[in-house]
Formats: sequence, structure tokens, C-alpha cells
Amino acid sequence: MAHNPYEQDLDRNPANYQPLTPLVLLERAAATFPDRTAVIHGRQRRSYRQFWERSLKLASALSKRGIGKGDTVTVMLSNTPPMLEAHHGVPMTKAVLHSLNTRLDAAIIAFQLDHAQSKVVIVDREFSGVMSEALGIASVKPLVIDYDDPEYAEDAPYPKGEAIGSLEYEELVAEGDENFAWQMPDDEWDAISLNYTSGTTGNPKGVVYHHRGATLMCYSNTVHAGMGRAPVYLWTLPMFHCNGWCFPWTVSVQAGTHVCLRWVRAKAMYEAIAEHGVTHLCGAPVVMSALLNAADHEKREFGQTVIFNTAAAPPPESVLSAMADAGFEVTHLYGLTETYGPSVVNEWKDEWESLDRSEKARRKARQGVRYAALEGLTVMDPATMRETPADGETLGEVMFRGNIVMKGYLRNPKATEEAFAGGWFHSGDLGVMHPDGYIQLKDRSKDIIISGGENISSIEVEDALYKHPAVAACGVVAKADDKWGETPVAFIELRPGRQATAEEIIAHCKALLASFKCPRHVVFAEIPKTSTGKIQKFRLREMVREM
Amino acid sequence: MAHNPYEQDLDRNPANYQPLTPLVLLERAAATFPDRTAVIHGRQRRSYRQFWERSLKLASALSKRGIGKGDTVTVMLSNTPPMLEAHHGVPMTKAVLHSLNTRLDAAIIAFQLDHAQSKVVIVDREFSGVMSEALGIASVKPLVIDYDDPEYAEDAPYPKGEAIGSLEYEELVAEGDENFAWQMPDDEWDAISLNYTSGTTGNPKGVVYHHRGATLMCYSNTVHAGMGRAPVYLWTLPMFHCNGWCFPWTVSVQAGTHVCLRWVRAKAMYEAIAEHGVTHLCGAPVVMSALLNAADHEKREFGQTVIFNTAAAPPPESVLSAMADAGFEVTHLYGLTETYGPSVVNEWKDEWESLDRSEKARRKARQGVRYAALEGLTVMDPATMRETPADGETLGEVMFRGNIVMKGYLRNPKATEEAFAGGWFHSGDLGVMHPDGYIQLKDRSKDIIISGGENISSIEVEDALYKHPAVAACGVVAKADDKWGETPVAFIELRPGRQATAEEIIAHCKALLASFKCPRHVVFAEIPKTSTGKIQKFRLREMVREM
Repeated sequence: MAHNPYEQDLDRNPANYQPLTPLVLLERAAATFPDRTAVIHGRQRRSYRQFWERSLKLASALSKRGIGKGDTVTVMLSNTPPMLEAHHGVPMTKAVLHSLNTRLDAAIIAFQLDHAQSKVVIVDREFSGVMSEALGIASVKPLVIDYDDPEYAEDAPYPKGEAIGSLEYEELVAEGDENFAWQMPDDEWDAISLNYTSGTTGNPKGVVYHHRGATLMCYSNTVHAGMGRAPVYLWTLPMFHCNGWCFPWTVSVQAGTHVCLRWVRAKAMYEAIAEHGVTHLCGAPVVMSALLNAADHEKREFGQTVIFNTAAAPPPESVLSAMADAGFEVTHLYGLTETYGPSVVNEWKDEWESLDRSEKARRKARQGVRYAALEGLTVMDPATMRETPADGETLGEVMFRGNIVMKGYLRNPKATEEAFAGGWFHSGDLGVMHPDGYIQLKDRSKDIIISGGENISSIEVEDALYKHPAVAACGVVAKADDKWGETPVAFIELRPGRQATAEEIIAHCKALLASFKCPRHVVFAEIPKTSTGKIQKFRLREMVREM
Repeated sequence: MAHNPYEQDLDRNPANYQPLTPLVLLERAAATFPDRTAVIHGRQRRSYRQFWERSLKLASALSKRGIGKGDTVTVMLSNTPPMLEAHHGVPMTKAVLHSLNTRLDAAIIAFQLDHAQSKVVIVDREFSGVMSEALGIASVKPLVIDYDDPEYAEDAPYPKGEAIGSLEYEELVAEGDENFAWQMPDDEWDAISLNYTSGTTGNPKGVVYHHRGATLMCYSNTVHAGMGRAPVYLWTLPMFHCNGWCFPWTVSVQAGTHVCLRWVRAKAMYEAIAEHGVTHLCGAPVVMSALLNAADHEKREFGQTVIFNTAAAPPPESVLSAMADAGFEVTHLYGLTETYGPSVVNEWKDEWESLDRSEKARRKARQGVRYAALEGLTVMDPATMRETPADGETLGEVMFRGNIVMKGYLRNPKATEEAFAGGWFHSGDLGVMHPDGYIQLKDRSKDIIISGGENISSIEVEDALYKHPAVAACGVVAKADDKWGETPVAFIELRPGRQATAEEIIAHCKALLASFKCPRHVVFAEIPKTSTGKIQKFRLREMVREM
């Protein structure tokens, strides 16, 4: 139109427009609740004032050493206070935080350091060895800072390595000024962090998050995790994993307390829950197993209901019931590194409470609906970019669109373009849309087994296997077959003290599945998992090739 | 810097960037909880599916009649379902919603219709008379739609007027298509609504809100009002007032239920609380008085704790205690039309619970700290734009900065520029910053009384008056005085059945205040209030001039 009065003399200015950034959420928490405990780590307690001031000092120290916009600061840290400080101190300098998965090997670390052009590496003494090796391989020569955790347990399962850096983390922080004039990002689209995908094939891709998405995740997480005033958040999910699903920033919204945890062990989790009044934790199903399978002497009584956010795999019925009995309320989330961690939530309906246990578990197994801050979630045929029918059966690719989808992949325009083809983020996950609008994953595209021209969902076979009482963990992959093209092979890890034969397992499947979907081979073995509890199917495929 | 890798090939695209708009929050609630009750109005119940479809039909019908970007749709409606539908249906056409205060007179309505260049007016039959008169005065000739509420009570305190429009609201909705292809705003900075300030001097100013701010208010309101799953929100605050503090949009975040209420009466409020399980309501102190002063036969028992968000004036100690006893938890908020309603919250601290009652009331009387979505809040000397010391004593002007500050004033660049001078929104409210970072209002700049060169805060004198057991409401204004320049005059409304003399009142004040601050004159009268419960000081000043 020629003249829109609502666009005349009504421009952005500093009074009515500021870039979204999660940094102001910590600033606000520290200004409002300076004396509230922000961080608990072993015997350490840090108030919000201290958390804020230490983040400022870290920013100031990095800034004095020339770190600023466009630079990458790499951290290889456990769930300890410096990791929380880095999530704020690094972006306060306008630099980008790159968190390394602490289980990576030297070659991949070196690749990431070079690809990210790291200027600084902060490394926990637990990982000195592998980092030292990686720095020997990498071309970049970053400033290396050791973190020597004073709370490192004497009976640690992993011993502390030698110092390898130029200075210790506390020395770096001491160089900084707590009155550092931190600045807002120039634009909310500016990068805040970098997280590499686990990259089961080819080189890992560097997923870039921005301040805008991180801020909107803070609100969405708060809403969907049901975080009321002053929550107590236990760090069982690694902060290196999608920036801990953005909870290092989210907890500030309600000025909650972070409870650090270097190693995820049942005893330490129960102690934190009982002693610090934990209200929320997140983790893969393996963390639930650890809680449920704890020895009696490791468990502790607690009065509060604890919200457990899980993702990675739908929780089996038996686990859900046991978790409820143990005082945990399980929320099922789904997302990818590219979507800031979870961006889909299984919104639970009151009327589902009256369903029988197996129907309830079926509902809980769905990934669900979009997060409040995600604008679009659908299932499409990627060839036509048309939505599949919402019939709960027609397989398609799960697609995301909205403000909590990554900026793209660093230095990888081709992968970025492919991921965003047609204006939607292609997840690579196969799923269905149920008639009620809830999505359910069926498989990763590459995990589908095509046997005699028919698609077999490995998840469907795994679901059937999990119903066998002896199965603790399982993974189903394809085996090349002259006649059928591919056939399914099941890898099974048995529960302690339980037994089963291949014949029993196959018979069990036949009672539940069409015959062509049943495993032709059954292998009993320990199932390889990633550090975040996901089953490593590429390892299973290697095992099949060696068979 | 020359080359920032985080700005290369990492641009916005539809997959990773969408304009923020509250419309997607209703869309999401309707897709996820289609059968949940979204709106209760008398005997009417509308599910989220119906609420969404009716909003789409309204948008479609308006769109067919040519309404679109840059156009203004005016509504003069009570807290009824069409008001909720208009909050969504109007912006779905990219037009702007202009809500009229239902207590305005014809001259001001006509001014607003012309200033906003209204294309459509939707008017409740309760207000046909004044709207008819206003349309006679105004230059614009909008399409007029009557709303004939089927739930209009037969024993209504205000009778229903004649139809004055071209068609009835339900006829308009029936013209629309529930499959209307609504569109996101082109830009999140686009206007969503227009609210005129009450304008006690000069012409009212048209405050323009944008989609971005409205969305961020939804998250902030949800957090600060402690809205968990499926809240039940009672509409005691007029939706014409700062778009009901953005709650017409906010309630979608947790897919809560709106309970409509045409007239704010104690009996109806208690009925809604008891029968619909209301969890939240908002309103001026006058709403609290109505609840507390209800006759026994109007009250109802209820089990839940109800959160009452109040603003406009700090709640007196006696009211806070009585509200707690009655089952309400009071949150004290503060904001202006220019800040989307509340953008400051009295964040309550656990440790304050152990304070004695009067100290507690003193803490509760502070306006508090910024909303999560407000980036800046401070007290400054407007002449120097320097912050006043945080000593709880030095008076300055309260200033706001951030994403929940208006776009500006419609067709009023001069006022917009003044309001945003120096990069902060100047509230016109005088206050202090306490050492703990909480702000407290002392007065509107124009409400300060200057007596013998000393500033007297009328709020301080009113606080003292409210401590007198016979005082139900009061207002203190200046009276011109030859010797002192100005002296304070107190207007007092007594509680039913209570008595007091001017001498008693002055003696009461002298026990609490410096002598020069005590009223020289005391007038016993009914205190004039705005429709939102604010005391109309300009009316008191008129009364003084006539004295």
C-alpha cells in the first residue's frame, strides 16, 4: 500500500529495540537475587552475584588477551562451574563458545580445533592427555588453559592428568575485571555457540547457534519443563551436548540453582536430589536406568516430585512405570543438534492418565508437538515437499522451521543449503504424523532396512525386542543379503542374570511383527553407545560387515 | 574484522527465521489441545478448535471486505468472546486492532476513530448509544458491526441499546472461511494493536504495539504470573486496557481457559473461581476491594490458591493480609500503556516471608525489577540522563528500555521523539532506586506537590492516610497557596459505617509524616476513579480549583 501510518516515524531505537540475548537473563537474576545460590559443585557454593562477577572476569580476561567477535573459544570441560561461566563469559566478549564432547578422540578434536580456528582452549585436567595429543595434530596454536578442579574426587574413576596449558583457569579469571563493560551482541543473529554433530559418517559438521534462538529456548524450556520459581537443576545432561539443551542459560529465567556433577553416578544423583532438593534433570534413557538400577545403599528418600526430561529414545513402558514409582515425572522431548536440542515435546494430556499402562506408554513414545518457540513442525515427502497424510502410518521426513533452528553449518555452505532445501530444515529422521497432530519417529533415513523391496523400520523391530523381559538394550541394523537385498540383524544386550536364545527372540518377534520384519540373525553383545546414551548404529554395522 | 566465519553463508531463511507473533501460540494450542475449553462465557463453551476457527473466520470475513495491512479495526467490547477473537482475527489480516475504553465519551471516541482512520467498528450493544453519537461526530465512515451478546443478562445493570450497524457480529463471522490462509506478519516489527493513553491533558496519544513485543510479553507473563499447565484465567482486567496486559495472547502459551466477565461484580467473580477453578486474575486494587467487601451470600468456598496480579497502586498492608486470608496470592506489577502493560514485577523473596506484616507490606509496595523480557529499567535525572544513586531516597524519573516498549505514538513524531529522548523511554513517573535494585514509585512528575520549595510526594501522604482505619480511598493533590506556593489537600472516601473528622485525619498524618507534608485541608467525598480503578487526580484538581 502507498502509505501505512503504522510504518511512519515508528522505527527501532535503543529504547524500544534490543537484541535478544540470554546474557541479560543472567544479569537480571544476579541483580534481583544476588545472594541466592546459583551454583553448587561439591563443597563449593557460588551466589548469583559471584556467578555473574566470575563470568564478567572471564570475559574481561579473554578480552584483554584479544578475544572478540568472530573468534572461537573451545572448552573441553565436564559439568563443572567453568562450563557455566564459559556459557556467559565467552559470548560477553562477542566470541563464540565451542564445546567439545569429552569422549572424543584426538583426531576428531584436532579436526574441530582447526575447523573452528580455535584461539583459546580451556581443558579440564581429566582430559589433558587426549587434548595434548590433539594439539600435537592440529594446525592451530590456541592459548591453552587448564582447569584443575578443586573438587576432583580422590577416589575418582578417572585420574587427573598433567597440566598442559600456559596457565590455570583460576589464574585466567583472576586477570579479569569484574567491572568489565560487557556488551550486547551487535545483532541477535550473531553466533553464540558452535556444536559439532557426532558425524557417524564423514567429518563432523559445525552447528552454529545465535543469541535469538538461545533466548527463545530459555523461555520455551522454562514453559515445557514446568520450571516455577527457583528450580534446582541437576547437571546429568552433558553441557557439551547442544549446550546442555540451552539449560545453562535457561535456569537464569527463574533464578534457579545449578547442581554440577562431574560423573553421572546413581549415588551422586540421589544425594543431590535428597540434599539440594533437585526439581529438574535431563538425560538419555541410560540416566533413567542408572537411577532405577541403583543399589539400595545408593538410593535416598526424597519428598519432591522430580521432573526428568528425556530424549534420544522413547522410554519403554516398564521404565516409565518404575520412574513414576520412584518419584520422577518423565517428559519425552525430541530434537537435534541443529534445533538447539529439544524443540519437540510430548505434551501430555490429562485424559491420557486414565488409559491403561501399555496405551499410556504408546502415547508417551510419540515425540509430540512443537515447542512454543518453534514455528513449524511437519512430516513431508522430501522429494515433493508435500506433507504426508496425518494417518499415523505414512512415512516421511520430519521437518522443522522456526527461530530455534540453527544459523547453519560453519564453513559448509553445501551442507547448509541441503539441510534448508525448500525452506525447511530436513532432520534426516523418518516419522509419521498421527491424526491428532503428534509426530512419531520411525527411523533415521539411513537406518531403514529395505528387505525384498519393503521398508522395515528398525525402531519398530527394536520396540518389539524391548518387550522381551530379558532385553536390556538392543539395536537393529541391515545386513546385505543376496536374495532380499537387506535383512534385519538384532544386537541384544541382556539384563544382568537373564538369559535368552536367538530362537526365543525370533519367536518373540514373530508374535508381534510381520514375519519379514523379524530379525534373521541375533547377536548377543554389549551395545556400543555414545557418551549421551545413543546407540551407535554405525558400530553395529561395522560388526555386521565383519560377521 | 575483515572476515568473520560466523557471518559467511549463515543467513536468515524461512527454515531458520520466522517473525515472532503471538498468533502461532494460539495456532499451536488449537493444534495440540483442540478439544480443551478455551473460552467460557455464561452458558457458552468454546474449544480451542472453535476459538481458532472462529478467529480465522473473522479474519477471512474482514479480509473479504478489504481489510488488510495498514488498516485499523476498532472494537468497543466488554470482556466477551468477540474481544478474544478480535485479538487474533484482526492481526491475521495484517490489520491493527484498536480497542476503545468502554467508558469513554462520544467526543473522545470520535477523536480516536478519526485519528486511527478506522475502517471497521465492532461495538457491543451495551455501547450503541455513545458509539452512535461518536459516529455522528467523526469524519471517518467505518463499517459498523453490532455484537448482540446472547449471554447479556436479563437483570443487567446497564440495558442493551439498539442495533446501529450494517450487520451483526455473528453474521460477519458467518461470512468467513475457517480455512482462511492466514499469514505471518511480514516483519515482527509490524504493528499488532493500538491503545490510546487516557490523556488527562490534551489529546490522547495512540500507543502502537508490535508482534515482537506482544510475543515476548506472552513468555514473560507466563513466567511472572507462574502459569503452569492449563491455567484458568478470569477476565476482570478490561481487555481494552493495554490489550488486557497481553493476556488474550498469553493464555495460549499454556493452552489455558479464558473465563469472560462482562461486569466485574463480586458474586460473579466468586462463582467463576468456585465453578471454573480460576487460577489467575488481574486487576486494579478496586477489584481486590470488591472481592474483600463482598457480602457473605456473594462469596463462595474454593480450594485452589488464586494468583491475583495487581498494578496501578501499591496494595496496602491490610488488603494484602485480607487477600491472603481469602485464598489469594497477590503479585504487584507495574507498567504503562507504553510498556505493553506490566513490565516490572515485585519479585518476592522467600526470606521476606519472615518479616513482620508492616515490613512485608513495605516490600510489597515496591514496584520491583524488570520483567524477563525487558532489557533495561532504571531511575535517572532526565536532565542529565545519569542514574540517580541507589539509595532509596533520591528522586528521579523511571526509565525503560527494551523489546516490550512500544513502537511509538501513531502520527505523533514529536511525542515519540520526546518519549524516547536519549535512548530510554521516559515514563513520567518519579521514583527511587533502592540499594537492592528494586524501584519504587514516588509520584507522577505532575503529581508532586511543591510546598515552601520542598517536594512532597502525594503517594507518601496517601500511604499515611491509608493507614487510618476509616479511609477506604484517598487522593492528595496540590492547592495553590500564596505563602507556600502549594499545599496538600486530601480527598477521602470513608469506609461504609466508619467516621472521621478532618482534625483526626491531620493528627493521624502528623504522627507519621513531617509536618510540612501533612494535608492542610481534608475533603470527605466519593473519589472519582477511571474505569481501570485509577484515581483521577485531574478531577480532584478541578474540585480544588472550585473550592
